[in-house]
Amino acid sequence: MTGYEKLISAEERNNSILCVGLDIVADRMPTHIERSIDGMLQFNKAIINSTSDLVSSYKINFAFYEQYGIRGFELLKKTIDSIPKEIHIIADAKRGDIGNTSRAYAKAVFEEFKCDSITVSPYMGEDSVSPFLRYEDKMVFLLCLTSNSGSKDFEKQKIGSDYLYEVVLKKSMKWGTTQNLGYVVGATHPKELKSIREKAPNSFFLIPGVGAQGGSPYDVITANNNGPAIINSSRGIIYAGGNELKYAEFSRLAALELRKQLNESRM
Amino acid sequence: MTGYEKLISAEERNNSILCVGLDIVADRMPTHIERSIDGMLQFNKAIINSTSDLVSSYKINFAFYEQYGIRGFELLKKTIDSIPKEIHIIADAKRGDIGNTSRAYAKAVFEEFKCDSITVSPYMGEDSVSPFLRYEDKMVFLLCLTSNSGSKDFEKQKIGSDYLYEVVLKKSMKWGTTQNLGYVVGATHPKELKSIREKAPNSFFLIPGVGAQGGSPYDVITANNNGPAIINSSRGIIYAGGNELKYAEFSRLAALELRKQLNESRM
Repeated sequence: MTGYEKLISAEERNNSILCVGLDIVADRMPTHIERSIDGMLQFNKAIINSTSDLVSSYKINFAFYEQYGIRGFELLKKTIDSIPKEIHIIADAKRGDIGNTSRAYAKAVFEEFKCDSITVSPYMGEDSVSPFLRYEDKMVFLLCLTSNSGSKDFEKQKIGSDYLYEVVLKKSMKWGTTQNLGYVVGATHPKELKSIREKAPNSFFLIPGVGAQGGSPYDVITANNNGPAIINSSRGIIYAGGNELKYAEFSRLAALELRKQLNESRM
Repeated sequence: MTGYEKLISAEERNNSILCVGLDIVADRMPTHIERSIDGMLQFNKAIINSTSDLVSSYKINFAFYEQYGIRGFELLKKTIDSIPKEIHIIADAKRGDIGNTSRAYAKAVFEEFKCDSITVSPYMGEDSVSPFLRYEDKMVFLLCLTSNSGSKDFEKQKIGSDYLYEVVLKKSMKWGTTQNLGYVVGATHPKELKSIREKAPNSFFLIPGVGAQGGSPYDVITANNNGPAIINSSRGIIYAGGNELKYAEFSRLAALELRKQLNESRM
């Protein structure tokens, strides 16, 4: 099963376009959990066990694992190993470099860490992205318009009559297919999301920024106009339990509630 | 000593603006070296021992280590540990993400892996770069105009009267100082390098693309007009020995020759 097929079938089976971002931070875990690699693995496993029938995918943001050094990569690998095989795994790594280097990153993320897709930065152009697209059973989510305030600095600058993020979209749509190339479009820009969706009606959008970053589920779903999408929430779900002993149950409730909001908006 | 001071003093002491990129690939090592993590460490150490009095810095391209998974990170850490303390270490990682994520990447590269500087992608704007700049004793090399053919896709697109790479330069120069913020400018664009140097006379430029990628040392040095620079060569130096038993001596000769060419052009 390709990464695309896995995503589609998980969305159908779990009736969910929700993605949970496993942004692990030792100090944000409930205080009763040990601040250690083992403690973080225990936390991630509990979150996965309590939400895996409610999501289409998990997003692994590599930065949060890299910050713990070599043992952080062990945590990353064990976390990935504990995700059920039928759930799509996004490597949120924002990689991209000259050809031979992107090939090595692709090998790392797809072969070593067994992820189904990866986020890639477009700045360096086609030959920095194509090595990832060469894995025919995997997917790339290219940064288009990101959710952060810095998106105004370059992404929202005009190149001729189009914004840079529109130039990225137009040019890159020829590099792949709708089954292996999607886009990152932040939930914090509903107006732009609507217009990007019109330009790319069949492309998968990975939409972060709902919840902690302020994007509204209703606005996002409306703007997305039923296009193929993955809506990510990280902190709002995994830390929903605060210091509760049964924190994973609170994460489940938060995932249930967000899935419900998303599904109601989709109707 | 800050990363900047370390760079300046290594350049003076070794009379060199040369950087050697430790782009390790198991199958490119001499055939007598075991294709294993230990073999690659042995190779890296031999290259470092034979060149550390000839360089200002080593560049560690994270992709080449990540492709070997967790053990690749052990190799990365041990390689860094075997570089003499007075030589500047560049993490060529091309990271960049929303604020809390860039903070985690900065922690990984500066605190866990003890590098002196990092390459960062500008696409997501100021708040994706500033967490790296907050480490006052470290340096950032922001991608400006890269050496690959894909640089034409977006970097060389015009925003008003300026190219995107010029907009990146102009805007970002206010984010840091010449002591903590430099730029990646590919050796394959000497004409543009000259014009970028005029706009940023005192900024450090990390210039890759000499050698295997086709940039000429003389053209680069002339275009750079004696500005602060690091000229990187990776494959052209570390694999100079082919399958020779004494491969590290050939790497030393290649580094000596390139340093000489660079220094003669600088006069």
